[in-house]
Parts: sequence; C-alpha cells; structure tokens
Amino acid sequence: MAAMWTVKVVGLGVVALSLSLELLWWLHRRLRPGKPLNEVLFFPSEIACVEHIFTPSSPSSCLCSLPHGLETSFSRLLRHILSASTSLDLCIFAFSNMDLSRAVLALLSRGITIQVLSDKDYSAITGSQIGVLRKAGICVRCDKGSVHMHHKFAVVDDRLLITGSLNWTLNAVQSNMENILVTEEPDLVRPFIKEFNRLWALNDPARYRHSNGQKLEPLR
Amino acid sequence: MAAMWTVKVVGLGVVALSLSLELLWWLHRRLRPGKPLNEVLFFPSEIACVEHIFTPSSPSSCLCSLPHGLETSFSRLLRHILSASTSLDLCIFAFSNMDLSRAVLALLSRGITIQVLSDKDYSAITGSQIGVLRKAGICVRCDKGSVHMHHKFAVVDDRLLITGSLNWTLNAVQSNMENILVTEEPDLVRPFIKEFNRLWALNDPARYRHSNGQKLEPLR
Repeated sequence: MAAMWTVKVVGLGVVALSLSLELLWWLHRRLRPGKPLNEVLFFPSEIACVEHIFTPSSPSSCLCSLPHGLETSFSRLLRHILSASTSLDLCIFAFSNMDLSRAVLALLSRGITIQVLSDKDYSAITGSQIGVLRKAGICVRCDKGSVHMHHKFAVVDDRLLITGSLNWTLNAVQSNMENILVTEEPDLVRPFIKEFNRLWALNDPARYRHSNGQKLEPLR
Repeated sequence: MAAMWTVKVVGLGVVALSLSLELLWWLHRRLRPGKPLNEVLFFPSEIACVEHIFTPSSPSSCLCSLPHGLETSFSRLLRHILSASTSLDLCIFAFSNMDLSRAVLALLSRGITIQVLSDKDYSAITGSQIGVLRKAGICVRCDKGSVHMHHKFAVVDDRLLITGSLNWTLNAVQSNMENILVTEEPDLVRPFIKEFNRLWALNDPARYRHSNGQKLEPLR
C-alpha cells in the first residue's frame, strides 16, 4: 500500500514538474521580445533594375537593359523605405537620387505622413529632389542656420531607423564607398525620433519673420 | 490516512514546482546574453575643455578658458575611442580634428594596433591629420579609386562600432548637425569589421605598381 502511494507521489511530482516547465517555457517565449532587425548595407551598390520593387505585381514587365531580379544594397534600402505604413521622417543633407525620390512619392500616394528636413544650401542645387517633393505636397523644412544639416537618416513608422554615411544621391549609391545601418533597436531609434522632432520644431517657418517684420509663409 | 497522503502529494508537487521555477529562472539569467551597449550622440557638441579625458589623473590641472568638467557628445566620443585596449580600425573620409588625432596618437603610445583607411583626396588637404598619423608610425592606407571613400566609422577592439554622419573635423564637431551611433550589437559590428578588412586588403600598396613597373613602397 505504502509503495503504491510512493509511486503515486513520485508520478504526481513528475507531472507537476513537467507542467511547470511547459508553463515557464510558454511564458518565456511570450514575454521575451523578438530580436529587433539589425542590418548593414554597403555601397557602391551593384547597378540593377529596381522596377520590380515599385511594381511587385508585374515583376517581369521591365524591358530595360539593366540586370533584373538582383537583390542589391540599393534594392534593400528601397524596400525598407517602401515598408512604411504610417509615417516617414527624413533628415537628409543631399537628396538628388530619382529612385529614392520616386519611393518617397510612392509613399505619399499611399497616404503616408511624410516630413522632410534638409540643408538649405544643398536643397537649392541643380538636380535636388527637395523642390520636387515640396511641389508634390510634402511638408519640407530646410535648416535655417549658417551651418550644415549634415544628417543622413530616416525613421519609418517611428520604428525603423535608416542611417549612415550615404547621402541620397546617385554618386553615393553607385560610386562611393558608403554604409547604411538599418535597425529596429529601440535604444537607437528613440534618440533619432527625439532629435528629428527637435530639429523639426526648431526649423518651423512660423518661428521666422521676414526682415520687414512680416511672418514668413509656412513652406510646404 | 488518505488525507495525510493527499497533503504530502500536494506538498511535494508545490516543492517540485518551486524548485523547477528557480532552476528555470537561473538558466534564463545564465543563458540570456547581457544587453549590448547602444548609444547615440548628436552634434554640434557643446564646446568644453577635454583635457581631463586625456589626463584623468590630474583633472583640475587645465587653466584654459573653456568650461571644465562638462560631459558632452564630443567627450563621450573621445572616451569611446580611448577605451581601446587592443585595436582601433578607423575608416574616415575627412580627418582634421586635432583632439581626435591626439586620441589616436595616445592609443599608439599605449601600444594599441591602429589601422587607418582614408580618402586619397581628403587626406592631402591642408589641415588633414592623416600625414601626422603616418609620420608617427601608424599604418595608413588611402583609397586608390577615382570615387570617394565616404565612410566615417571606427571599430574599437573588434567589439565597439562608432559610425554616423560625422567626419573627424572641427566643423563637424562644433558646428554641423551630425550624429554618431555607438554600438556593441554583434549583428551591426561584424559587417563593419568584415568591410574594413575587405577595404584594407583592397588598398594594400603591394597590389599597386608604379607606371615604370616597380612595386610601390608600402605606405606607413
């Protein structure tokens, strides 16, 4: 009789142990946050057609002479930008790359909230896409200071940071040695969101007045 | 009698449960890697004396007119560079900042292995510190291509990545709007180490020959 009870006790102990292990494993998997995305892209990127990224529904429609179907640093960058579902905050020194401009305009047509901060000198040079974005209705602010706004970062959906040495120009993408770091790590993303908001407020045209005392019209 | 056994069974179950919980918690703490350093620095940095960073043993010895004892973005950057205990791999487009040059030379005097990759055009401009480092005995290689080596990153001890928009110039530190990202995240550090090694090998002077067919002397 006593032996039977011992077997039962041991059996129940084993059941309790296995159940609690299973419960803890489930809790561990539920509570542990998934590892955030961390990716590094180096440039110059291979030159390849990126049409399929803009029109994924008809990937074989392009007849241009560039290689097709290649996944390059540049196509990865475009994909990350186009992954936006709510917002894009872009803080960029030089912006003349037509494909990147097309990506930003594609987001605009999908109703994404876009804010662009740029350097006042470089936004005025020939080939700059800043005027194109502004004309399309995107809210653009240019740094008013005498120094350079030298950042090259974007924050997608307040979640994904894209930053590095790469200006958004054709030379940077196709010729220079450059890097882009893409991360969802909150400790890295949060400071950039905060700095973007600070610079955005700092360059609010409503804070500036013409020399004749009139308020400047808010720029688009 | 049966009631007593039930109490014992329940008691043993509770003991088994608590022991397994404790064991799992211990395993969780042992196996979970410590969170890697992630830090973001924004510039322009406040202008302050950095003498105490170079001579921490006599922090109050400096009599210059700059504010003392301030922890700024620039002092943080210097501290991260000076934290090197074995190696510094630097890949920098423009390097003219005297304090940053002093930090690299301080590492050299401590026997740290230093490799510097720079852009051939910018390393030759007035005020560049690349020649100073080379004369001091640091192994420097300059990009031979016709394009720009536009990176601005450093890897400390194959462990810590320092990267961003900031060139190592006085203007970048004290005037421009810039960012520096400091991280120990292996998924971000590893690709930069690999890219540095690739560029280092690519720009090995032994691979180049003078137009007269003689091998170039390795540059220091």
